[in-house]
Amino acid sequence: MKKRIAVLPGDGIGKEVVKGAIEVLQAVGERFGHQFQFSYGKIGGSAIDAAGTPLPDETLELCKESDAVMLGAVGGPKWDRQPPHLRPEKGLLKIRKELNLYANLRPTQYYSSLSDTSPLKNEVIEGVDMLMVRELTGGLYFGKPSERTQQNGKDAVVDTLFYQKEEMRRVIKLAFELAGSRRGKVTSVDKANVLESSRMWREVAEEIAKQYPEVALEHMLVDNAAMQMIKNPKQFDVVVTENMFGDILSDEASVLTGSLGMLPSASISENGPYLYEPIHGSAPDIQGKNAANPIAMILSAAMMLRLSFGMEEEAEAVENAVNQVLEAGYRTRDIVSFGKKVVTTSEMIEEVKATL
Amino acid sequence: MKKRIAVLPGDGIGKEVVKGAIEVLQAVGERFGHQFQFSYGKIGGSAIDAAGTPLPDETLELCKESDAVMLGAVGGPKWDRQPPHLRPEKGLLKIRKELNLYANLRPTQYYSSLSDTSPLKNEVIEGVDMLMVRELTGGLYFGKPSERTQQNGKDAVVDTLFYQKEEMRRVIKLAFELAGSRRGKVTSVDKANVLESSRMWREVAEEIAKQYPEVALEHMLVDNAAMQMIKNPKQFDVVVTENMFGDILSDEASVLTGSLGMLPSASISENGPYLYEPIHGSAPDIQGKNAANPIAMILSAAMMLRLSFGMEEEAEAVENAVNQVLEAGYRTRDIVSFGKKVVTTSEMIEEVKATL
Ligand SMILES: CC(C)[C@H](C(=O)O)[C@@H](O)C(=O)O
Ligand SMILES: CC(C)[C@H](C(=O)O)[C@@H](O)C(=O)O
Repeated sequence: MKKRIAVLPGDGIGKEVVKGAIEVLQAVGERFGHQFQFSYGKIGGSAIDAAGTPLPDETLELCKESDAVMLGAVGGPKWDRQPPHLRPEKGLLKIRKELNLYANLRPTQYYSSLSDTSPLKNEVIEGVDMLMVRELTGGLYFGKPSERTQQNGKDAVVDTLFYQKEEMRRVIKLAFELAGSRRGKVTSVDKANVLESSRMWREVAEEIAKQYPEVALEHMLVDNAAMQMIKNPKQFDVVVTENMFGDILSDEASVLTGSLGMLPSASISENGPYLYEPIHGSAPDIQGKNAANPIAMILSAAMMLRLSFGMEEEAEAVENAVNQVLEAGYRTRDIVSFGKKVVTTSEMIEEVKATL
Repeated sequence: MKKRIAVLPGDGIGKEVVKGAIEVLQAVGERFGHQFQFSYGKIGGSAIDAAGTPLPDETLELCKESDAVMLGAVGGPKWDRQPPHLRPEKGLLKIRKELNLYANLRPTQYYSSLSDTSPLKNEVIEGVDMLMVRELTGGLYFGKPSERTQQNGKDAVVDTLFYQKEEMRRVIKLAFELAGSRRGKVTSVDKANVLESSRMWREVAEEIAKQYPEVALEHMLVDNAAMQMIKNPKQFDVVVTENMFGDILSDEASVLTGSLGMLPSASISENGPYLYEPIHGSAPDIQGKNAANPIAMILSAAMMLRLSFGMEEEAEAVENAVNQVLEAGYRTRDIVSFGKKVVTTSEMIEEVKATL
C-alpha cells in the first residue's frame, strides 16, 4: 500500500522523536512492502517564528490531503509571554477543531519492565490496561463567551462550557465500540451533581448503553475518578469523559505506570485524517541533547498503522519490537532504573529498527 | 470560654462521626475549662425527608447564630434519583453560598504509621505536608446560565465558569497568608493556556505575590498538577486553585497518603462562622455498622478549635491524642494493615478521649 503522512515535528524534542517514528515506519515499509510518503509542515512555536501564526494554512492543507498526521510536540518558554492567539498551543487547538478530531484516545499500560519507575506500589498497578477516551473539540475549550467582563461595575471574567448533544453522542458511542473489543466496560466520568452539561452527558451515556447490551456502563463523579485512578486503577477498562475532565484525568492516568515517556495517543475524526502524537510535551530542558525517549512517538506510529491504515500485523510488529528492546534492558534516561543500560534517543531508535 | 457550635450530622455515617467529635470536644472543655454548647440542625437527605428541602431555613439561621458549624456528610442512594434541586448535595452548595464560605482548606499529611495503606511507594510520600486551598463559592458551580438550550435547532447545553476578580483575590491572598506560616511556597494551579478565567487568575496571583516577598509563587497547569501530585507530592506546600479544579485535585491529594478517612477540612468566610467537615462522604455502605473512622471529623474539630476559637493548645492536644492512638496500633477498618488492632467507631472515640 501507498500512504501519505503529514509530519509536523513542532517544537523542542518534537523533531527528535518524530525522526524515530519515520525511521521505524521506513523499516516497516521495507519489511512489509508498503510505501510511506512523508511531507513536512510547521506547527506551534516554530510556525510562529517562520510564518507568524501557530498553524499556517499550508500546514492545514497538507494535513487535509494526507492519509494521517503525525505530530511531535508544541510549546516552549520562548513563546510563553506571547498573547493567547500567538501561543504554540493555539496551533494544537486549531488543528483539532479544523480536522474535527473529536476524540482523543490514550491507552495506559502496565509494563512489568518499568514498574521500578512508577510512583505507585507494584501490586496497585500490575496489569493496568486502561483506555482514556477524551472529547476533544467541545466544552470549556471552545465555548463562547470566553472573555473579560463586568458585574455591577466590577472586573469579572467568563468562560463557557458548551456542548451539543450530538457531540456527546459520537464520543460516547466510540467509547462503547472500543470497549466491545476490550474487556466490555465503560466508565463515564462527569460531575452530574453540579453541572447541567454532566446531567445531559449521563443521559446520553444511558441512551447509548442500551444499544450495547454486551458492554457494562458505570457512572463516576470526576472527583471520585481522580481518587479511584490512584487507589485502584485496575478497575478501569475504557474511561470516557468531556474535554477538560479528560485533560486532567488522562494526564493523571499517564503517570501511574511510570511510563509517561512511552505513551502514545490517537485523535479521531469522522471522515478526515487522524492525528497521532505522544502524550509528553516538548521538554525544552532536554532539547537537542539526544536524550528524549522516542518510544511514545514510535508507539503513536503503531497506532496509526492500526487505526488509519488497517495494518494490524505491522502495528504489532512495532509494538513487539519496542517490548523486546525494553526487555533487553535498554532505557532512555526518563525510564532508567538500577541495572539498566542508558541509551540516547538515536541509539534507542536503532535498537527498535534492528529488532523489527 | 463559651462557644456555640451548630452541629449538622447529615446522612449516612455523618451521625456516627459527629458523635465522636462532640465527645472529644466535651473532654477538651472539661480539661481546659471551656463550655461548648451544641445545637443540632438538619441538612442533606435527612432534611429532605423531614422538611422537603436539603437546607431548611432553620438550619441556616442556626448556623448564622453560631460561632462555628460542624458538618458530618450528606448524600446517599436513597436521594440519587431526585431532581437536582432536591438532592442532598444542593444543601451543601447552598450552605457554602449562604455562609459565604469562599475557601476550603484541606491539609494532606503523611502519617508514617499509615504508609502501608497508601497506594504510593513510601519514598514518594514520606514527609508529604500539603495544604490545598480551594475556591468554594464561584466558578462553574454557581455561574449562570446552567441549562439546556438549542443551537441551530439542535439540543445543546451550557454551564458557565464565572468569577469576579475580587473572588480570586481573597482566596489567593488567603493562600499567601497561610504559606507565610508554613514553608513559604504557593503553587497556583490554572489552565491559562486555554481559559480566559485562568489568565485573570494568574494575573491576580502575580499581583498578590508582590505583597508577599517572603513567599515564593509558582504557576502550574492543572493537567501537570494532576501528574505532579502523584510523581512528587513533596514538592507542594500550599496549593491554591479555583472551585472545579480544586474539587478534583483535593480529592486526588487526599488518597496519596492512604489516610482519606483521617483528613479534615475547614471552610472559611470573611466574617461569618466557619464550617468544618471531614473529607470523606456519607459512606452508606457502612452506615449503622459502627465501622466508620471518626478521626477525620475529630481532626476537623481540632481545626475548629484552632481557626475559629484561637485555641491552639487545645487543638494540639486533640491532634496529639489522635497520633498516640494510631501509634498504639488502633485502627478502624478503612486504615487497618497487618498486625494492627481493628476497633469500632465507638472504641476509637473512647481511645482518643482516654488519651486526651
Ligand atoms: C497544550 C494544551 C492546550 C493541551 C490541552 O489542554 O488539550 C494539552 O494539555 C493536551 O492535553 O493535549
Ligand atoms: C457533593 C459535591 C457537590 C461536593 C463538591 O463538588 O464540591 C463534594 O465533592 C466536595 O468536594 O465537597
